[in-house]
Amino acid sequence: MAKARVGLIRVLTTDDPEVLNLHGNLIMDYFPGLEVVTRCISGHPRGVFDQVTEEQAWPKVVALAQEMAAEGLQAIIVSCAADPGVKQAREVVDVPVIGAGSSAAHVALSLSADVAALGITEDVPAVMAEVLGPALLAAGKPDGVETTVDLMSLQGKRAVLQAASELKLQGTQVLVLACTGMSTIGAAADIRRELNMNVVDPAIAAGLIAWYATQRG
Amino acid sequence: MAKARVGLIRVLTTDDPEVLNLHGNLIMDYFPGLEVVTRCISGHPRGVFDQVTEEQAWPKVVALAQEMAAEGLQAIIVSCAADPGVKQAREVVDVPVIGAGSSAAHVALSLSADVAALGITEDVPAVMAEVLGPALLAAGKPDGVETTVDLMSLQGKRAVLQAASELKLQGTQVLVLACTGMSTIGAAADIRRELNMNVVDPAIAAGLIAWYATQRG
Repeated sequence: MAKARVGLIRVLTTDDPEVLNLHGNLIMDYFPGLEVVTRCISGHPRGVFDQVTEEQAWPKVVALAQEMAAEGLQAIIVSCAADPGVKQAREVVDVPVIGAGSSAAHVALSLSADVAALGITEDVPAVMAEVLGPALLAAGKPDGVETTVDLMSLQGKRAVLQAASELKLQGTQVLVLACTGMSTIGAAADIRRELNMNVVDPAIAAGLIAWYATQRG
Repeated sequence: MAKARVGLIRVLTTDDPEVLNLHGNLIMDYFPGLEVVTRCISGHPRGVFDQVTEEQAWPKVVALAQEMAAEGLQAIIVSCAADPGVKQAREVVDVPVIGAGSSAAHVALSLSADVAALGITEDVPAVMAEVLGPALLAAGKPDGVETTVDLMSLQGKRAVLQAASELKLQGTQVLVLACTGMSTIGAAADIRRELNMNVVDPAIAAGLIAWYATQRG
């Protein structure tokens, strides 16, 4: 059976193909029936991590989504937990546009009405907070981490586990990761293994939805 | 790799194993990595289709969920779009309890903010209406269909396509099926093929979430 072809937009600017393709490769590991084509926006070497970078990013996301849809990709993933450009891209492209943040929040809510979020900022991305509503019981961030790049250090990974374990102590049923930098470092698998928690990874959640949307059975 | 074992609760009482296992088999076709064990509640030969049957059903669903969780099943699907007993079962079992109605609504919202629902009652199941909120643009039901059993006739299937096509004319981006009887008759595939719409099937949506929740990668 021919693979479904899905576009993935990174909001971390990089010319290293290994870094660029990390989320797409993760999704293809989970869904061998998907071929994920990845591109990144320009001008964001530190990613999207606050309102300013988000506002700078979204029009570039929309432009890339239009380009990828015109090339025949069957769904577009915006691989950032803030969903930059998702709403706007939906206005101008015909294929499903799937945000990592909203997808992860919806998958978490399909599992539990008691959800905690673990991101890289003090505030949960607005789109996730809006979807989660009163189900968002707690939120945390790893100490000493400000951008997705900080997450990649050993110290960053340890701080993620520490923050997750604090949220577990608060009675979290499902932990939703509120930054796709967490996907990059494989935080979901680490947290499941070390803390035995139900964890939703934003890049994989978006892949899950994209996979379903491109099934024709 | 060992298959993840998931429990599925039908709220249509039947002693015909083929009918009983229909949703579980559908889910296993989509997710070969899942083994789905199905049981049904007693006393509901016409399923759950209104508030009275829903209130009669939910305590039986909770009892079955407890039984299945005690047997070591890793997640429990309640395969009914009204999510009978889902909230209550979550209070008493430790594994994820996944409702077909809420899962389908969340998967639909991950794809679009413009959703229509197609069920078997005039009203969309309350849990789905609550999740969809203002994204629920329209709702329809097939003419002449009152229970899941009515759906299984050729006339029922034709009425489903007719109702879907009316919702398409109203500008629906994503159609969510608001009754798992639609899963039984394969309505999602028919609608995709005949009308080229994005359709979310409630049993498959629940399977999608159960599959993800039982992944350990």
